[in-house]
Amino acid sequence: MKMEIERKFLVSGDGWRAAAGAGQSCEQGYISAAGSGATVRVRRIGEKGFLTLKGASEGIARPECEYEIPVDEADYMLEKFCEGRTVSKTRYVIQSAGMVWEIDEFSGENRGLVLAEIELEAENQAFEKPAWLGEEVSGDPRYYNAALAVNSYSKWGI
Amino acid sequence: MKMEIERKFLVSGDGWRAAAGAGQSCEQGYISAAGSGATVRVRRIGEKGFLTLKGASEGIARPECEYEIPVDEADYMLEKFCEGRTVSKTRYVIQSAGMVWEIDEFSGENRGLVLAEIELEAENQAFEKPAWLGEEVSGDPRYYNAALAVNSYSKWGI
Repeated sequence: MKMEIERKFLVSGDGWRAAAGAGQSCEQGYISAAGSGATVRVRRIGEKGFLTLKGASEGIARPECEYEIPVDEADYMLEKFCEGRTVSKTRYVIQSAGMVWEIDEFSGENRGLVLAEIELEAENQAFEKPAWLGEEVSGDPRYYNAALAVNSYSKWGI
Repeated sequence: MKMEIERKFLVSGDGWRAAAGAGQSCEQGYISAAGSGATVRVRRIGEKGFLTLKGASEGIARPECEYEIPVDEADYMLEKFCEGRTVSKTRYVIQSAGMVWEIDEFSGENRGLVLAEIELEAENQAFEKPAWLGEEVSGDPRYYNAALAVNSYSKWGI
Protein backbone atom coordinates (compact mmCIF):
# COMPACT_ATOMS: atom_id res chain seq x y z
CA MET A 1 0.00 0.00 0.00
CA LYS A 2 1.23 3.46 -0.84
CA MET A 3 -0.27 6.89 -0.47
CA GLU A 4 -0.82 8.38 -3.90
CA ILE A 5 -0.53 12.17 -3.90
CA GLU A 6 -1.76 13.54 -7.16
CA ARG A 7 -2.85 16.83 -8.67
CA LYS A 8 -5.03 17.03 -11.73
CA PHE A 9 -5.49 19.82 -14.28
CA LEU A 10 -7.36 20.58 -17.44
CA VAL A 11 -5.14 20.98 -20.49
CA SER A 12 -5.22 24.14 -22.53
CA GLY A 13 -4.62 23.84 -26.26
CA ASP A 14 -2.38 21.43 -28.15
CA GLY A 15 1.04 22.74 -27.06
CA TRP A 16 1.72 19.52 -25.12
CA ARG A 17 1.54 17.32 -28.21
CA ALA A 18 4.99 18.29 -29.49
CA ALA A 19 6.61 16.84 -26.35
CA ALA A 20 4.39 13.76 -26.18
CA GLY A 21 5.65 10.49 -27.62
CA ALA A 22 3.35 7.81 -28.92
CA GLY A 23 0.49 7.34 -26.50
CA GLN A 24 -0.67 4.08 -25.05
CA SER A 25 -4.22 2.93 -25.42
CA CYS A 26 -5.85 2.55 -22.00
CA GLU A 27 -9.17 0.94 -21.17
CA GLN A 28 -10.28 0.92 -17.58
CA GLY A 29 -13.37 -0.10 -15.72
CA TYR A 30 -14.79 0.00 -12.21
CA ILE A 31 -15.94 -3.11 -10.40
CA SER A 32 -17.10 -1.62 -7.17
CA ALA A 33 -19.37 1.36 -7.04
CA ALA A 34 -19.55 4.20 -4.55
CA GLY A 35 -20.72 3.14 -1.11
CA SER A 36 -18.35 0.21 -0.84
CA GLY A 37 -15.07 0.27 1.07
CA ALA A 38 -12.81 1.09 -1.86
CA THR A 39 -12.80 1.82 -5.56
CA VAL A 40 -11.75 -1.32 -7.45
CA ARG A 41 -10.36 -0.56 -10.90
CA VAL A 42 -9.23 -2.90 -13.64
CA ARG A 43 -7.04 -1.42 -16.37
CA ARG A 44 -5.57 -2.59 -19.62
CA ILE A 45 -2.81 -0.25 -20.79
CA GLY A 46 -0.90 -1.30 -23.88
CA GLU A 47 -0.26 -5.02 -23.37
CA LYS A 48 -0.40 -4.97 -19.57
CA GLY A 49 -3.19 -5.50 -17.06
CA PHE A 50 -3.54 -4.00 -13.58
CA LEU A 51 -5.94 -4.31 -10.68
CA THR A 52 -5.99 -1.27 -8.40
CA LEU A 53 -7.79 -0.58 -5.13
CA LYS A 54 -8.11 2.98 -3.87
CA GLY A 55 -9.44 4.04 -0.50
CA ALA A 56 -11.03 7.30 0.53
CA SER A 57 -9.17 10.50 -0.32
CA GLU A 58 -7.68 12.61 2.42
CA GLY A 59 -7.15 15.94 0.70
CA ILE A 60 -5.17 15.10 -2.46
CA ALA A 61 -3.67 11.94 -0.90
CA ARG A 62 -5.27 8.56 -1.40
CA PRO A 63 -4.26 5.04 -0.26
CA GLU A 64 -3.66 2.78 -3.24
CA CYS A 65 -2.77 -0.89 -3.74
CA GLU A 66 -1.91 -1.90 -7.30
CA TYR A 67 -1.18 -5.35 -8.74
CA GLU A 68 -0.14 -6.35 -12.23
CA ILE A 69 -2.38 -9.14 -13.51
CA PRO A 70 -2.45 -11.21 -16.72
CA VAL A 71 -3.80 -9.04 -19.55
CA ASP A 72 -6.37 -11.66 -20.59
CA GLU A 73 -7.82 -11.57 -17.06
CA ALA A 74 -7.98 -7.76 -17.23
CA ASP A 75 -9.87 -8.07 -20.52
CA TYR A 76 -12.23 -10.64 -19.01
CA MET A 77 -12.99 -8.40 -16.04
CA LEU A 78 -13.47 -5.31 -18.22
CA GLU A 79 -16.05 -7.19 -20.23
CA LYS A 80 -17.81 -9.12 -17.46
CA PHE A 81 -17.39 -7.14 -14.24
CA CYS A 82 -17.45 -3.51 -15.46
CA GLU A 83 -20.48 -3.31 -17.74
CA GLY A 84 -21.47 0.33 -18.20
CA ARG A 85 -18.63 1.55 -15.99
CA THR A 86 -15.64 1.95 -18.32
CA VAL A 87 -13.55 4.78 -19.78
CA SER A 88 -11.29 4.72 -22.83
CA LYS A 89 -8.36 7.06 -23.27
CA THR A 90 -4.90 7.44 -24.73
CA ARG A 91 -2.20 8.09 -22.18
CA TYR A 92 0.85 10.20 -23.02
CA VAL A 93 3.82 10.74 -20.74
CA ILE A 94 5.67 14.05 -20.82
CA GLN A 95 8.81 15.03 -18.95
CA SER A 96 8.78 18.71 -18.06
CA ALA A 97 11.15 20.61 -15.75
CA GLY A 98 12.20 17.38 -14.00
CA MET A 99 8.65 16.21 -13.41
CA VAL A 100 6.59 13.49 -15.09
CA TRP A 101 3.17 14.48 -16.43
CA GLU A 102 0.58 11.98 -17.55
CA ILE A 103 -1.79 13.36 -20.14
CA ASP A 104 -5.04 11.48 -20.68
CA GLU A 105 -6.89 12.20 -23.89
CA PHE A 106 -10.29 10.60 -23.46
CA SER A 107 -12.30 8.99 -26.25
CA GLY A 108 -15.76 7.49 -26.58
CA GLU A 109 -18.34 9.17 -24.35
CA ASN A 110 -15.64 11.38 -22.80
CA ARG A 111 -14.22 12.59 -26.13
CA GLY A 112 -13.05 16.22 -25.93
CA LEU A 113 -11.70 15.91 -22.40
CA VAL A 114 -7.93 16.08 -21.86
CA LEU A 115 -6.53 15.88 -18.32
CA ALA A 116 -2.98 16.22 -17.00
CA GLU A 117 -1.88 14.54 -13.77
CA ILE A 118 1.25 14.88 -11.73
CA GLU A 119 2.24 12.57 -8.90
CA LEU A 120 3.97 14.26 -5.96
CA GLU A 121 6.09 13.14 -3.02
CA ALA A 122 4.33 15.52 -0.64
CA GLU A 123 1.13 17.55 -0.74
CA ASN A 124 2.95 20.87 -0.65
CA GLN A 125 5.64 19.92 -3.19
CA ALA A 126 6.35 22.78 -5.62
CA PHE A 127 6.57 22.20 -9.36
CA GLU A 128 6.79 24.28 -12.49
CA LYS A 129 3.58 24.61 -14.49
CA PRO A 130 3.98 23.89 -18.20
CA ALA A 131 2.53 26.50 -20.59
CA TRP A 132 -0.25 24.14 -21.68
CA LEU A 133 -1.55 23.59 -18.16
CA GLY A 134 -5.09 24.80 -17.52
CA GLU A 135 -7.35 25.03 -14.50
CA GLU A 136 -6.76 22.69 -11.55
CA VAL A 137 -9.55 20.15 -10.99
CA SER A 138 -7.98 18.03 -8.22
CA GLY A 139 -10.88 18.63 -5.88
CA ASP A 140 -13.68 18.21 -8.40
CA PRO A 141 -15.23 14.73 -8.12
CA ARG A 142 -16.75 14.95 -11.63
CA TYR A 143 -13.24 14.48 -13.02
CA TYR A 144 -12.54 11.24 -11.14
CA ASN A 145 -12.19 8.54 -13.78
CA ALA A 146 -14.66 6.44 -11.75
CA ALA A 147 -17.15 9.31 -12.09
CA LEU A 148 -16.44 9.80 -15.82
CA ALA A 149 -17.18 6.08 -16.28
CA VAL A 150 -20.82 6.60 -15.31
CA ASN A 151 -21.42 10.32 -15.96
CA SER A 152 -19.40 11.00 -19.07
CA TYR A 153 -18.09 14.38 -20.16
CA SER A 154 -20.30 14.47 -23.26
CA LYS A 155 -23.37 14.47 -20.99
CA TRP A 156 -22.32 17.38 -18.80
CA GLY A 157 -23.91 19.96 -21.07
CA ILE A 158 -20.88 22.27 -20.92
CA MET B 1 -9.72 -16.65 -14.75
CA LYS B 2 -11.06 -20.05 -13.91
CA MET B 3 -14.55 -21.39 -13.35
CA GLU B 4 -14.89 -22.50 -9.77
CA ILE B 5 -17.33 -25.40 -9.37
CA GLU B 6 -18.07 -25.94 -5.75
CA ARG B 7 -20.62 -27.71 -3.56
CA LYS B 8 -21.24 -26.72 0.01
CA PHE B 9 -22.71 -28.71 2.91
CA LEU B 10 -23.49 -28.36 6.56
CA VAL B 11 -21.38 -30.56 8.81
CA SER B 12 -23.02 -32.99 11.17
CA GLY B 13 -21.27 -33.70 14.48
CA ASP B 14 -17.57 -33.80 15.26
CA GLY B 15 -16.59 -36.94 13.36
CA TRP B 16 -14.51 -34.89 10.91
CA ARG B 17 -12.15 -33.60 13.60
CA ALA B 18 -10.18 -36.86 13.86
CA ALA B 19 -9.08 -36.54 10.22
CA ALA B 20 -8.42 -32.79 10.34
CA GLY B 21 -4.90 -31.56 10.92
CA ALA B 22 -4.14 -28.21 12.50
CA GLY B 23 -6.42 -25.61 11.03
CA GLN B 24 -5.35 -22.27 9.60
CA SER B 25 -6.76 -19.05 10.89
CA CYS B 26 -8.59 -17.21 8.11
CA GLU B 27 -9.89 -13.66 8.13
CA GLN B 28 -11.70 -12.41 5.08
CA GLY B 29 -13.57 -9.31 4.13
CA TYR B 30 -15.63 -7.95 1.28
CA ILE B 31 -14.77 -4.71 -0.48
CA SER B 32 -17.56 -4.56 -2.97
CA ALA B 33 -21.14 -5.14 -2.02
CA ALA B 34 -23.99 -6.71 -3.96
CA GLY B 35 -25.07 -4.67 -6.96
CA SER B 36 -21.58 -4.19 -8.34
CA GLY B 37 -20.04 -6.24 -11.13
CA ALA B 38 -18.26 -8.77 -8.95
CA THR B 39 -17.62 -9.75 -5.38
CA VAL B 40 -14.19 -8.51 -4.32
CA ARG B 41 -12.76 -10.46 -1.39
CA VAL B 42 -9.56 -9.93 0.55
CA ARG B 43 -8.33 -12.86 2.64
CA ARG B 44 -5.58 -13.47 5.12
CA ILE B 45 -5.03 -17.18 5.68
CA GLY B 46 -2.12 -18.16 7.89
CA GLU B 47 0.71 -15.91 6.73
CA LYS B 48 -0.57 -15.36 3.20
CA GLY B 49 -2.78 -12.72 1.60
CA PHE B 50 -5.11 -13.08 -1.37
CA LEU B 51 -7.34 -10.83 -3.42
CA THR B 52 -10.17 -12.66 -5.18
CA LEU B 53 -12.83 -11.48 -7.62
CA LYS B 54 -15.88 -13.62 -8.26
CA GLY B 55 -18.52 -13.01 -10.90
CA ALA B 56 -22.13 -14.09 -10.98
CA SER B 57 -22.87 -17.78 -10.32
CA GLU B 58 -24.21 -19.93 -13.11
CA GLY B 59 -25.65 -22.90 -11.23
CA ILE B 60 -22.83 -24.08 -8.95
CA ALA B 61 -20.12 -22.67 -11.28
CA ARG B 62 -18.66 -19.24 -10.74
CA PRO B 63 -15.91 -17.29 -12.56
CA GLU B 64 -13.04 -16.48 -10.23
CA CYS B 65 -9.76 -14.57 -10.51
CA GLU B 66 -7.42 -14.90 -7.54
CA TYR B 67 -4.10 -13.15 -6.84
CA GLU B 68 -1.67 -13.60 -4.00
CA ILE B 69 -0.79 -10.23 -2.45
CA PRO B 70 1.57 -9.13 0.34
CA VAL B 71 0.04 -10.08 3.69
CA ASP B 72 0.50 -6.59 5.12
CA GLU B 73 -1.57 -5.19 2.25
CA ALA B 74 -4.27 -7.80 2.95
CA ASP B 75 -4.28 -6.70 6.59
CA TYR B 76 -4.51 -3.04 5.55
CA MET B 77 -7.46 -3.71 3.27
CA LEU B 78 -9.25 -5.85 5.86
CA GLU B 79 -9.02 -3.00 8.31
CA LYS B 80 -9.67 -0.04 5.99
CA PHE B 81 -11.75 -1.33 3.07
CA CYS B 82 -13.95 -4.01 4.71
CA GLU B 83 -15.36 -2.37 7.81
CA GLY B 84 -18.39 -4.31 9.00
CA ARG B 85 -18.06 -6.86 6.21
CA THR B 86 -15.67 -9.52 7.55
CA VAL B 87 -15.83 -13.16 8.64
CA SER B 88 -13.39 -15.09 10.82
CA LYS B 89 -12.98 -18.82 10.64
CA THR B 90 -10.54 -21.68 11.00
CA ARG B 91 -10.01 -23.70 7.86
CA TYR B 92 -9.23 -27.42 7.99
CA VAL B 93 -8.36 -29.57 5.00
CA ILE B 94 -9.44 -33.22 4.95
CA GLN B 95 -8.64 -35.85 2.34
CA SER B 96 -11.49 -38.33 1.98
CA ALA B 97 -11.95 -41.01 -0.69
CA GLY B 98 -9.55 -39.24 -3.07
CA MET B 99 -11.24 -35.84 -2.69
CA VAL B 100 -10.19 -32.72 -0.81
CA TRP B 101 -12.68 -31.21 1.61
CA GLU B 102 -12.31 -27.78 3.15
CA ILE B 103 -14.03 -27.46 6.50
CA ASP B 104 -14.66 -23.93 7.75
CA GLU B 105 -15.39 -23.56 11.45
CA PHE B 106 -16.63 -20.02 11.87
CA SER B 107 -15.97 -17.83 14.90
CA GLY B 108 -17.08 -14.40 16.07
CA GLU B 109 -20.62 -13.53 14.98
CA ASN B 110 -20.85 -16.76 12.97
CA ARG B 111 -19.78 -19.06 15.82
CA GLY B 112 -21.58 -22.40 15.76
CA LEU B 113 -21.57 -22.67 11.97
CA VAL B 114 -19.39 -25.33 10.33
CA LEU B 115 -19.42 -25.72 6.55
CA ALA B 116 -17.74 -28.25 4.27
CA GLU B 117 -16.85 -27.41 0.67
CA ILE B 118 -15.66 -29.57 -2.17
CA GLU B 119 -14.28 -28.27 -5.45
CA LEU B 120 -15.21 -30.28 -8.53
CA GLU B 121 -13.96 -30.57 -12.09
CA ALA B 122 -17.47 -30.73 -13.51
CA GLU B 123 -20.93 -29.95 -12.18
CA ASN B 124 -22.08 -33.55 -12.39
CA GLN B 125 -18.90 -35.09 -10.93
CA ALA B 126 -19.70 -37.90 -8.50
CA PHE B 127 -18.00 -38.13 -5.09
CA GLU B 128 -18.35 -40.16 -1.95
CA LYS B 129 -20.04 -38.42 0.97
CA PRO B 130 -18.16 -38.69 4.25
CA ALA B 131 -20.20 -39.82 7.29
CA TRP B 132 -20.03 -36.36 8.86
CA LEU B 133 -21.57 -34.60 5.86
CA GLY B 134 -24.91 -32.92 6.51
CA GLU B 135 -27.47 -31.12 4.36
CA GLU B 136 -26.35 -29.51 1.09
CA VAL B 137 -26.59 -25.70 1.09
CA SER B 138 -24.92 -24.91 -2.28
CA GLY B 139 -27.96 -23.04 -3.51
CA ASP B 140 -28.72 -21.12 -0.33
CA PRO B 141 -27.39 -17.55 -0.58
CA ARG B 142 -27.46 -17.10 3.22
CA TYR B 143 -24.43 -19.37 3.40
CA TYR B 144 -22.31 -17.33 1.01
CA ASN B 145 -19.39 -15.99 3.03
CA ALA B 146 -20.17 -12.52 1.63
CA ALA B 147 -23.68 -12.87 3.09
CA LEU B 148 -22.41 -14.19 6.43
CA ALA B 149 -20.18 -11.11 6.63
CA VAL B 150 -23.21 -8.82 6.89
CA ASN B 151 -25.98 -11.13 8.16
CA SER B 152 -24.18 -13.41 10.55
CA TYR B 153 -25.35 -16.87 11.61
CA SER B 154 -25.90 -15.79 15.23
CA LYS B 155 -28.61 -13.39 14.02
CA TRP B 156 -30.60 -15.88 12.01
CA GLY B 157 -32.73 -16.90 14.96
CA ILE B 158 -32.40 -20.63 14.24
